[in-house]
Amino acid sequence: MVRTCKHNWLMAERHKGPRIRKVPAGDNRQRLVCPDCDYVAYENPKVVVGVVATWEDKLLMCKRAIEPRRGYWTLPAGFMELGETPEEGAAREAWEEARAELEIIDLLAVYSIRHISQLQLFYRARLLSPDVSVGPESEEVGLFTFDSLPANDLAFPSVHWAIEHFQQVRGADTFPPFRNPAGRTGDMRRGR
Amino acid sequence: MVRTCKHNWLMAERHKGPRIRKVPAGDNRQRLVCPDCDYVAYENPKVVVGVVATWEDKLLMCKRAIEPRRGYWTLPAGFMELGETPEEGAAREAWEEARAELEIIDLLAVYSIRHISQLQLFYRARLLSPDVSVGPESEEVGLFTFDSLPANDLAFPSVHWAIEHFQQVRGADTFPPFRNPAGRTGDMRRGR
Repeated sequence: MVRTCKHNWLMAERHKGPRIRKVPAGDNRQRLVCPDCDYVAYENPKVVVGVVATWEDKLLMCKRAIEPRRGYWTLPAGFMELGETPEEGAAREAWEEARAELEIIDLLAVYSIRHISQLQLFYRARLLSPDVSVGPESEEVGLFTFDSLPANDLAFPSVHWAIEHFQQVRGADTFPPFRNPAGRTGDMRRGR
Repeated sequence: MVRTCKHNWLMAERHKGPRIRKVPAGDNRQRLVCPDCDYVAYENPKVVVGVVATWEDKLLMCKRAIEPRRGYWTLPAGFMELGETPEEGAAREAWEEARAELEIIDLLAVYSIRHISQLQLFYRARLLSPDVSVGPESEEVGLFTFDSLPANDLAFPSVHWAIEHFQQVRGADTFPPFRNPAGRTGDMRRGR
């Protein structure tokens, strides 16, 4: 039996809580149900919101202090929470991870990371000041020119994509948001 | 204590399953926890995916056979499921609700319905044929010219928005996706 945690990673089988897959009445697919109390733990894709945030010609990046990919560099991003807009969530993550204050500009990309059921929305953003510092999930934060990015130490495929897509539309006022690059799923286990 | 079901509607307090709010170790906000087994039911915004789908000059709409807003007209849309892309989810919903086969064109809008923690993505789509018929969640489906829409019987604010936004970009090849109209939250209880 497959279960996932907050981050939709596979977890070991468990012996309490929702752990049986069955089709609830009125539904048309299997859900995770607690056999002790019939609680249905609906599992839906989770939304990750993040920013490609710049100060002048420099990009804000964070070195991860937590797993997965601890020690690798990422864009400020995280799970959208209840009661916030995606733009508010993206700005909140930038504050939590890099103590960055910024203004959201527009939607850069909508990526689908299907194997972990994540929908990732990256926004272009303008930093309000270059004063950034580490939050609890970062061990280092920095502003990098695009020719000095830690390009060999990026945490996730979508970080590569978002940076690449950002550069493609520098100077563009409006554009349709990007999607996954052709043939790319974001599945690091399979190298694509 | 507030709980929500699959649709993020408020539910009565319950006496089994996750029902206590507390901050789990390593987290920074309250989550819904089962006091019997410590299962944490993380609650995140849910993604709704839908289509503004046309055949020639006609728009596909469905009369809802289920609550909420039973008997009112809507665009094919529903909760994105695990393991699918948003485009696949939008096409699946069109099949489930209207037996419609279509081709997704592009992203029309990203709406945030904050009070029910929904992120709604509407896609423009082209029907592959005008042969549509009711699925289990619809009591009627139809293809309407834009001057004969059931405009006074639309189910949700975002249905209004998506139709209005669709008409604003008819003939446009590329555009940034729309957001909520200014000042509009989608909260029907408050008339905005």
